[in-house]
Amino acid sequence: MSPDRELRVSKIRNGTVIDHITGGQSLNVLAILGIDGSEEFSVSIGMNVPSDRLGHKDILKVEGRELSQSEVDVLSLIAPEATINIVRDYEVVEKNRVEPPAEVVGVLSCPNRNCISNDDEPVETRFTVMADGVRCDYCSEILRDRLAEHIDV
Amino acid sequence: MSPDRELRVSKIRNGTVIDHITGGQSLNVLAILGIDGSEEFSVSIGMNVPSDRLGHKDILKVEGRELSQSEVDVLSLIAPEATINIVRDYEVVEKNRVEPPAEVVGVLSCPNRNCISNDDEPVETRFTVMADGVRCDYCSEILRDRLAEHIDV
Repeated sequence: MSPDRELRVSKIRNGTVIDHITGGQSLNVLAILGIDGSEEFSVSIGMNVPSDRLGHKDILKVEGRELSQSEVDVLSLIAPEATINIVRDYEVVEKNRVEPPAEVVGVLSCPNRNCISNDDEPVETRFTVMADGVRCDYCSEILRDRLAEHIDV
Repeated sequence: MSPDRELRVSKIRNGTVIDHITGGQSLNVLAILGIDGSEEFSVSIGMNVPSDRLGHKDILKVEGRELSQSEVDVLSLIAPEATINIVRDYEVVEKNRVEPPAEVVGVLSCPNRNCISNDDEPVETRFTVMADGVRCDYCSEILRDRLAEHIDV
């Protein structure tokens, strides 16, 4: 089989298709899901593929894996247009748009080392979601880029 | 179009198909190529797909990009079975197996901070390739995993 043919056999049996990811963000989405390849389940990624709606987009298919609500919440911050399709037995059984939450609790770590949430205190991190980033409720530090690096799921 | 259909339209016009990558190593190959998505060219990745020869393998297609010899040299260290297909105008015009070089010069940085190659001296890094890693010619430090993190192309 030619390499081209092989990659086309990418329909998944059970798992999740994340479509309409902001172009170029799929590696950050993988980071959110904690996937680096060593997990041995099949993953297909299309990066910067043409899209009517978005110009360019990324698309990600993960075999044998569904997403938790906190993963979806963080995903919505870097890919606000994403749609999440749950596939079972080769059929899409559920299709959802992501929706940015008002708050993200216990998922992101604060980039400010002096923030109380980085001490050994028993407080959960808590960020208010804004149009272009998130703001720590404790120290008001703002996190815009590099969100994926501060995920602590 | 369904998400499935869209990903299948992944034949590339001009660029490189890297096939038979060791399963789970495609993100490290992307790191070697310096690709993180922000470059805006189209990339397709199949991770942990079934392979007759390797059991599982990764496959990577990069539109509009060919590889330098030093990129191929480093790639051969983490994916010794890889084949590199150069595609022009939708046709594979060249197909090569990678071949681990005897030495890797000026590509990897030494993980040993005290190594002379990490000083400001005008010396190029130089590693001897072994069966299961590379050894710095200056300080004998051995680098096995995390090769991708020490690339300095």
